[in-house]
Amino acid sequence: METAVPKISDFPTGEENTAYAQYFSGKSWLAPLTANKDLNVPINNVTFEPGSRNNWHSHTGGQILIAVGGAGYYQERGKKARRIESGDIVEIAPNVEHWHGAAPDSWFSHIAITANPQTNENQWLEPVSDEQYAEAVK
Amino acid sequence: METAVPKISDFPTGEENTAYAQYFSGKSWLAPLTANKDLNVPINNVTFEPGSRNNWHSHTGGQILIAVGGAGYYQERGKKARRIESGDIVEIAPNVEHWHGAAPDSWFSHIAITANPQTNENQWLEPVSDEQYAEAVK
Repeated sequence: METAVPKISDFPTGEENTAYAQYFSGKSWLAPLTANKDLNVPINNVTFEPGSRNNWHSHTGGQILIAVGGAGYYQERGKKARRIESGDIVEIAPNVEHWHGAAPDSWFSHIAITANPQTNENQWLEPVSDEQYAEAVK
Repeated sequence: METAVPKISDFPTGEENTAYAQYFSGKSWLAPLTANKDLNVPINNVTFEPGSRNNWHSHTGGQILIAVGGAGYYQERGKKARRIESGDIVEIAPNVEHWHGAAPDSWFSHIAITANPQTNENQWLEPVSDEQYAEAVK
């Protein structure tokens, strides 16, 4: 059964993100927004269904998130989660363990920019448990 | 007299962009959105008053624009201008001469990402004349 994705931003939603599903709890959608590799700024719009989030992970090159629709959360290991909505920016430093995803009761879209793509590698860790998620968003 | 900037996106407007005024026809505002230099992805929100546009220019590293509010135009030398609105992305290849700015009857905001900032240099050229602008937006 296909999930109907509501329109929550002016950016495209793309296709269901099956390639990364193994690193997510819940469904997500991915829309590549750029193509020119000379620019070294890969940009995708990522959309999460309510309650969906990615596993704890880190990027050797870092990452930038630009929230563009709905409501979500961002949390770094050992810190309080931060609620993010359209217009909010998250700068994720290299090698910082973190997760991001939708609020329990809202779809969420953020533009994701891969920093230092020439050398970046992602390290995927364990899922954000239901208990960790409930604590983060309460 | 200060110009009142209307709210056309969820992103901050920042201060009037006096440092670059010499390269603009009309007023603009600049809001830095990122600070972590390790990420090598400098991002600013640029807001143009109606009719305002920057000079013809190019970037040795290229640039990416993400339209977030209002309506504007982007034109590369020798090509037809492209109208851009919230949700549109413009990938500007290195060394391509171009300009961008607001529509004659609309404020416009785009997020601007400096590509390859480690080596990027901007080359500023002549203003977009009233005749060139009128032709571009008609």
